[in-house]
Amino acid sequence: MGEGTGERLGILAGGGSLPCVVARAALEEGYQPIFARFGDGTGGSQDGFGEGRDFAWGEAGNAIMWLREMQVRRVVFCGTISRRPDFKALIPSWQTLKRLPAALSIVRGGDDRLLRNLAAYLERQGFTLLPVQAVAPQLLTPGGTLSARKPETLELSALTSARDAAIALGRLDAGQAVVASNERIIALEGIEGTREMMRRVADLRARGRIHRGERLALVKAVKPDQDHRFDLPSIGLRTIDEAVEAGISAIGLSAGASLVLDYDDVVAAADRAMIALVGLSSAEGTAKAMGDAP
Amino acid sequence: MGEGTGERLGILAGGGSLPCVVARAALEEGYQPIFARFGDGTGGSQDGFGEGRDFAWGEAGNAIMWLREMQVRRVVFCGTISRRPDFKALIPSWQTLKRLPAALSIVRGGDDRLLRNLAAYLERQGFTLLPVQAVAPQLLTPGGTLSARKPETLELSALTSARDAAIALGRLDAGQAVVASNERIIALEGIEGTREMMRRVADLRARGRIHRGERLALVKAVKPDQDHRFDLPSIGLRTIDEAVEAGISAIGLSAGASLVLDYDDVVAAADRAMIALVGLSSAEGTAKAMGDAP
Repeated sequence: MGEGTGERLGILAGGGSLPCVVARAALEEGYQPIFARFGDGTGGSQDGFGEGRDFAWGEAGNAIMWLREMQVRRVVFCGTISRRPDFKALIPSWQTLKRLPAALSIVRGGDDRLLRNLAAYLERQGFTLLPVQAVAPQLLTPGGTLSARKPETLELSALTSARDAAIALGRLDAGQAVVASNERIIALEGIEGTREMMRRVADLRARGRIHRGERLALVKAVKPDQDHRFDLPSIGLRTIDEAVEAGISAIGLSAGASLVLDYDDVVAAADRAMIALVGLSSAEGTAKAMGDAP
Repeated sequence: MGEGTGERLGILAGGGSLPCVVARAALEEGYQPIFARFGDGTGGSQDGFGEGRDFAWGEAGNAIMWLREMQVRRVVFCGTISRRPDFKALIPSWQTLKRLPAALSIVRGGDDRLLRNLAAYLERQGFTLLPVQAVAPQLLTPGGTLSARKPETLELSALTSARDAAIALGRLDAGQAVVASNERIIALEGIEGTREMMRRVADLRARGRIHRGERLALVKAVKPDQDHRFDLPSIGLRTIDEAVEAGISAIGLSAGASLVLDYDDVVAAADRAMIALVGLSSAEGTAKAMGDAP
């Protein structure tokens, strides 16, 4: 039993597999996980891990009431949210209506600002927001080469370009992911998300717009001034499949500031696909992080 | 008759309508246009304006020989190139083979670097590279509001975000175009080109990933250190149609460093669609350029 020792942990759950991974880790740490499912997470079946309820965005106020009733004090934010809440298009419940001015100020701005505003709001409501990595530190990407194969020279140059572009994107509070080759920037993530950007790369390759000789790298980087309590870049098994389809041969992630879901399986899948997987230590430190590469 | 006075002007023509617009302007200036068509331009029918030949990328050397034989000294580069040459995948002609090391050094790098290398190469071969705007200065985007409707407050904020992002993209030698709303960056152009990026925005909107209330702006900006002799950002009638489909209500272009093809028709189409069209004077000068806006 870890530090949770029976305390309830509210999991504000979006879509994807991360909420379950976090719940599993929370149980191991001695927490009792409770799911408040939002957006892509609604209709999920994480209840094997504890109680759970779906909330429409218009019911955010009800979710706060419910978490209080369930005596939740600490909450963790995880999972994907592909559609942003549109409070104006919803008929909010009374509990939310009372909080509408706050809600409206939360949804303005880029994704990072949105989450930061939401965090500040939850804290004003008396909750403590835990980062995913405080509950499940084993998810954090280590530094250096994680796969059996090290990146080759052309891949190192593709990783560097993609990382620089991803950091520039992050400064704009746009997407987190970029695909580059050793020659040029191929694709940049907007609101479509990493998966659709990867499909675009696969399509461009199928149409001959990317040459066989171009080695492609995907980088998902933490935004320079990102609040590490939420929305860290993450990859999972599906990312490796998508990379294979897009012809990507190297993947870079911010070391210590991104998540690898199902680490052993992801590394095994990368190795089967001969993909070089690296944890990049910082903007300045790529070459150093990859110092063991040729 | 302008300064051309019968001199031949080599039009290195990619796809789209720009080469014809340039040829028309060149004729008016007293030049005799000659088309060397490449990439997307091959199979074109611009010959009403003068002689023309298609060249595969592997025949770049032959094109140079032919232009010399035709006594062409000045050349202008225009039109879109959606596929980059892949010399490795082609069987080059003898004329090109002789120049292969130069050719290979030309195709490395982002689009801007590619064109810059090509320009340097043509100049070493004795040609003078004219910018499109030297032949057809009427194509350059003026500053300020060009449409009947001025941008509204939300559109001004969308234009500013999109412009900042487009400049950041330009620094990376990635794409030239960005779509943003008053709240966030929506889409960034990679190698897919502006048209496909706009289709993506239309698709995201159709799927409810963009709210009705979000005012969208498209900005095409010149890259900060771009050689203005080629590849200036441009829009035409089709861009307005694409903007309408994507639900974009404001378009910004670098004033004096981008091209509007068929200016009167473009402005008329923007007005019919109630689109605010503005020439942005510089990174620092958006508010000033739009100073006449509310």
